[in-house]
Amino acid sequence: MDIKALVSQMTLEEKAGLCSGDDFWHTKAVERLGIPRTMVSDGPHGLRKQDDQADHLGINDSIKAVCFPAACATAASFDPEMIRAMGEAIGDSCQHEKVSVVLGPAVNIKRSPLCGRNFEYYSEDPYLAGRMATAMIQGVQSRNVGTSIKHFALNSQEHRRMSSSSEADERTIREIYFPAFEMAVKEAKPWTVMCSYNRINGVYASEDPWLLTEVLRKEWGFEGYVVSDWGAVSDRVAGVAAGLDLEMPASGGVNDRKIVEAVKAGQLDEKLVDQTCERILNIVYRYLESAKPETPWDKEGQHRQAAEIAAECMVLLKNEGDLLPLDKEDEIAFIGEFAAKPRFQGGGSSHINSFKTTGALEAAEGLKIVYARGYSVERDEATDADIAEAVSAARKAKTAVVFAGLPDSYESEGYDRSHMRMPDCQNKLIEAVAEANPNTVVVLHNGAPVEMPWIGKVKAVLEAYLGGQAVGEAVVRVLFGDANPCGHLPETFPLKLEDNPSFLYYGGEGNATEYREGVFVGYRYYDKKKMDVLFPFGYGLSYTTFEYSGLKLSADRIRDTETLTVTVTVKNTGKRAGKAVVQLYVGDSESTPIRPVRELKGFSKVALAPGESREVSFDLDKRSFAYWNQAIHDWHVETGVFTIEAGSSSRELPLRETVEVESTVELPRHYTLDSIFMDVMADPKAAPIMREYMKKTMEVFGKEEQEGSTDAAKEAITEEMNMAMMNYMPLRGAFSFGGSTPEEAEELLKKLNK
Amino acid sequence: MDIKALVSQMTLEEKAGLCSGDDFWHTKAVERLGIPRTMVSDGPHGLRKQDDQADHLGINDSIKAVCFPAACATAASFDPEMIRAMGEAIGDSCQHEKVSVVLGPAVNIKRSPLCGRNFEYYSEDPYLAGRMATAMIQGVQSRNVGTSIKHFALNSQEHRRMSSSSEADERTIREIYFPAFEMAVKEAKPWTVMCSYNRINGVYASEDPWLLTEVLRKEWGFEGYVVSDWGAVSDRVAGVAAGLDLEMPASGGVNDRKIVEAVKAGQLDEKLVDQTCERILNIVYRYLESAKPETPWDKEGQHRQAAEIAAECMVLLKNEGDLLPLDKEDEIAFIGEFAAKPRFQGGGSSHINSFKTTGALEAAEGLKIVYARGYSVERDEATDADIAEAVSAARKAKTAVVFAGLPDSYESEGYDRSHMRMPDCQNKLIEAVAEANPNTVVVLHNGAPVEMPWIGKVKAVLEAYLGGQAVGEAVVRVLFGDANPCGHLPETFPLKLEDNPSFLYYGGEGNATEYREGVFVGYRYYDKKKMDVLFPFGYGLSYTTFEYSGLKLSADRIRDTETLTVTVTVKNTGKRAGKAVVQLYVGDSESTPIRPVRELKGFSKVALAPGESREVSFDLDKRSFAYWNQAIHDWHVETGVFTIEAGSSSRELPLRETVEVESTVELPRHYTLDSIFMDVMADPKAAPIMREYMKKTMEVFGKEEQEGSTDAAKEAITEEMNMAMMNYMPLRGAFSFGGSTPEEAEELLKKLNK
Repeated sequence: MDIKALVSQMTLEEKAGLCSGDDFWHTKAVERLGIPRTMVSDGPHGLRKQDDQADHLGINDSIKAVCFPAACATAASFDPEMIRAMGEAIGDSCQHEKVSVVLGPAVNIKRSPLCGRNFEYYSEDPYLAGRMATAMIQGVQSRNVGTSIKHFALNSQEHRRMSSSSEADERTIREIYFPAFEMAVKEAKPWTVMCSYNRINGVYASEDPWLLTEVLRKEWGFEGYVVSDWGAVSDRVAGVAAGLDLEMPASGGVNDRKIVEAVKAGQLDEKLVDQTCERILNIVYRYLESAKPETPWDKEGQHRQAAEIAAECMVLLKNEGDLLPLDKEDEIAFIGEFAAKPRFQGGGSSHINSFKTTGALEAAEGLKIVYARGYSVERDEATDADIAEAVSAARKAKTAVVFAGLPDSYESEGYDRSHMRMPDCQNKLIEAVAEANPNTVVVLHNGAPVEMPWIGKVKAVLEAYLGGQAVGEAVVRVLFGDANPCGHLPETFPLKLEDNPSFLYYGGEGNATEYREGVFVGYRYYDKKKMDVLFPFGYGLSYTTFEYSGLKLSADRIRDTETLTVTVTVKNTGKRAGKAVVQLYVGDSESTPIRPVRELKGFSKVALAPGESREVSFDLDKRSFAYWNQAIHDWHVETGVFTIEAGSSSRELPLRETVEVESTVELPRHYTLDSIFMDVMADPKAAPIMREYMKKTMEVFGKEEQEGSTDAAKEAITEEMNMAMMNYMPLRGAFSFGGSTPEEAEELLKKLNK
Repeated sequence: MDIKALVSQMTLEEKAGLCSGDDFWHTKAVERLGIPRTMVSDGPHGLRKQDDQADHLGINDSIKAVCFPAACATAASFDPEMIRAMGEAIGDSCQHEKVSVVLGPAVNIKRSPLCGRNFEYYSEDPYLAGRMATAMIQGVQSRNVGTSIKHFALNSQEHRRMSSSSEADERTIREIYFPAFEMAVKEAKPWTVMCSYNRINGVYASEDPWLLTEVLRKEWGFEGYVVSDWGAVSDRVAGVAAGLDLEMPASGGVNDRKIVEAVKAGQLDEKLVDQTCERILNIVYRYLESAKPETPWDKEGQHRQAAEIAAECMVLLKNEGDLLPLDKEDEIAFIGEFAAKPRFQGGGSSHINSFKTTGALEAAEGLKIVYARGYSVERDEATDADIAEAVSAARKAKTAVVFAGLPDSYESEGYDRSHMRMPDCQNKLIEAVAEANPNTVVVLHNGAPVEMPWIGKVKAVLEAYLGGQAVGEAVVRVLFGDANPCGHLPETFPLKLEDNPSFLYYGGEGNATEYREGVFVGYRYYDKKKMDVLFPFGYGLSYTTFEYSGLKLSADRIRDTETLTVTVTVKNTGKRAGKAVVQLYVGDSESTPIRPVRELKGFSKVALAPGESREVSFDLDKRSFAYWNQAIHDWHVETGVFTIEAGSSSRELPLRETVEVESTVELPRHYTLDSIFMDVMADPKAAPIMREYMKKTMEVFGKEEQEGSTDAAKEAITEEMNMAMMNYMPLRGAFSFGGSTPEEAEELLKKLNK
């Protein structure tokens, strides 16, 4: 299809019309030219297709589909290959349902545990989020169905999400909030990108030319179309100029007219409208030309796949005395309504109409399970009778498993949590059960970290996150040892909400939210501040044990244009097969910019039989060592020593080596009279000139001294002077002490700047 | 003296000349007109007069003088009356020495324990700093000698102090970094203000018209002259225009010529130069016309006064089992070189050449003291022999008192600390002594908080800060119960450096330091983040006990134009006379701006005999409840409930009441299509209009429903819709769902904005 030719045949009105949807879920048709509508649908952990072209809010039922684990869970798998396979399955369902683009994945950074939509996001770490999103996109798009990576960008809160401005400095944006998008755009080439509701430093994402054109297209090479989040358009004409292609949902023609008027008034270049139409039609036809509605949708098969994935995502947080796995011969109490009706997904646009759901109770059929409801999810309460029944069941059982977590109303798209607590009734239940039976396990169903006031009283905790419709099967497999838990936390669990780096300013004031913690998000903050946490980023136990050894670097020293290869050996030292997540962190030992202690730059999930060991290798390039330099607006590596750490979590890093990286980039420098002495002396080119000047100056003073002068300036330059004071002295002061005329000073500046 | 007439007789060159000093310490004379030189001298906890017109750096000896406790200590007294008396004494010494202005007090906020100059500053709390500075200025100036409150402003680090830009938002500046200056300028009218070296949001303080003219003069009514910190001038002409009057020290004529050239070239209004000269000469003659060089300087009397003040400043941090006070009959070991040679002041421009110094060892003559050096300050080490001798002395004594703290090299003007630790040798010594004798007391000589790894091993800790030349006498009086400790911490002692709110960004990158913690400095941060601290702000023990009761408010509800009177009763419930520091904190229970939990708004030091009680009262005005509103650039009280807490420290507040404060100021409001629904609904004027609109809209939908329409918008407005989503919806969305045309929407906006 010659898209350019097609667009050239369209009237201005047709083109403006194509810039917004036909309804909630379709691009517009242009029947005159044979351009059909295409459908997009919510996702991303399944397909939320609204057959009746209805709402974006999950009020009406969408078609029956398969609900895979949400991103909060899949990120914990640290297994991009598995995520890719999940994407393939979702791609198949889209083809089957004639959906051209599935709206996801969502890669916003978990700035605070409070964000209502955290369950849809991957991580507090941009590298992990980027790897997961890349795999997901590659999986879906391998089926010739598009994705829409979202919400671009800095959409890390739901509070006032349609008006709030995320205020962050360039470095924070580049190092924390962009990289997941950047990696996915560069490596997986998503067909579309969804811009977010919020503003960024005052400008709506939907009309930000820096965001949508400079960075996304010119820097990262994005070639698809940008779609607005549903209702994110404020000034449509500014949006077209900025690079927002498709407005969703339909604007009722209002904004189409504004585009036409702006072009006619000469306020908007028609070529920009053409370009927008070309981008949209490129994707429309990319789908249409490889549409395969005959693709089968094996829902039962996908349910089994969802169960397998869920098992790989679960994070074993605590397992005192190897209480887990449980013995199938033992009598076990399943306590808590989530055992029967698990919470397995979150509310809002990602809500899937699951064709079936398996709770743990059902999945454990045939085992010796006693069930007690424990609490009512709907009424969010545990009656005395509930507690009594639970305690009684716990007393009689070998082990008590409490299924707990967050009810739907606690976290959802559309609003943020105001605290990090679990329901009081559930905390009460857990305490009561733990008192009744020392062998108590807690299984958690939640989309984001919770405080665990009872952590010291239970022996085991299994974090199941929002594990999708088959979560019950996965939980039972893991509890009884048919699967070995291998998930690791994609986020820090702080001890209390106030510990979170964004706590003071999260949510913001009025319509502005300042990202004052800067790059210190998640473990970057807890590590730098040396804070205790409940569970650190990257943490996760297994039923077996692993040993890390043999950290080797391919070089002691590299230039920033070269690649360093790091190898690590991991061995299964236990008696069960299991999967280790080898994590690699890089830190700049000493740096001019204020940097985190360590940052994740590589990970690898390795399946190992008992006694088996394997060598894993990672390639680290410039980006692995670089920070965003705001002076040159580019990534930069400061010459110096970097630490390379490897292990099983951000706080269990038994292996450590260092490498020296040398920059090949010379940073711009410009000295003025206000530049300070120490900066000149730290510059290998300028220092000798300054030293020569100082030497002459000292000689002059030396002479004067012999003549008995007691000039104050002389004293100030003597060695007795506090060197720190000298260090911080501006050149204007040094030149003045040196007795230079303003003209001589200018002359010296010129030399220094050469 | 008719200053205006005098200036009118001066040539441009003479006037430009008057804008800088004659040398390091004098204003220029204009002999032709009979204008003499006047001298200024460093302070502020004593007089540092350089007889030989020499350096600003304390390299050469200044005249013999009396070193009072430094500001770190005097702030702990929470006793403005006493500070005023100290100011009077310093004023007398200035008159005696023909010094027209003493350069102090220094009121910069203790943003980080690392600031090398913290010992010269009062507090992390602006209210306390303001009260202390006001008293000090009133005391000095009551003797017709000027002060120079410094360093204006945001000079809370020494690192790169002559080039670094302190980057802070307007609210932070107004609420934290300005109020001490503001209170002192308004209430005590300092003759001069010293601008700081640093830049503020990019602009040098020495050439910032907002700082030196808009705020200082126009808002606060300052009428004296502004002097540059020594060497703080970058662009002298910009400085004159901005309101910097006197450049110090002499510029060698260079900058005088620049002023002349700028006036001649029409770049600088000569009237500004006239004004500057008038301001300088006003102060010159204010001093000259009331100079009393015959004023006696009773150094011995001031030494006794310094000892009394020092005793009032000491903070008893720990006193397990009432180990203190010691019994004069007992054998006591004094351990640590500071017992013989106390550290009692800091390095730099405030360094006083004390005419005599009394260490604790000397002051304790006649008591049963055994002394062991413990460590060498100069070599910063404790040899095995030192430790052995100390342990042996400790073993034999009833009680061991270790004199410890920070050597001079650890903290000074000119550079910041890089950590918060005491010397390793001293920590080692304390551990060894505490092991040898369970009754171990630590006396600390330091200008800023230190980490105390041994805190659990010693029974008592007395914080003596840098207590001036008579500190040894004061320590002995307090240790043996001749004085009852009554100091309270003017700053938080965090458990570790990383806990400090500015830790991540303190010092900054290159020449910019971001004050990212905003208003959350000191206890404002620790309280909001619910962090444990070593010792909280306002904390201090006594040898007696106090009971707080009877918190009464003059009203339950006031308008922000009214004053609330708060009364508290404090009773000495112990057996010794003592002084309580009654502290009053105000907090906004729930507020739109992000505010601290509580802020100090009143304190009163009360001397009470055993069994005596007294009622103390405080007046709270608008400012006590207000925050700085950046939209109206003014103080604003948000209508609502405020908590009033009273007690003996920021974390011991047994009394609590609430008051409702009603704002009399209407904030500006302007709705646009991007304004969100909840903001309109929260506005009592706009809400009814919006409600009316919504009602009509619903009726339209209602009708359509009967006609069988399934418009998505209808669904979105139903009650089932998540209210949070509605709350955050922009009016553009609400109007669009309501089916309004753009014209109708504009019409409605007009109504809302009326």
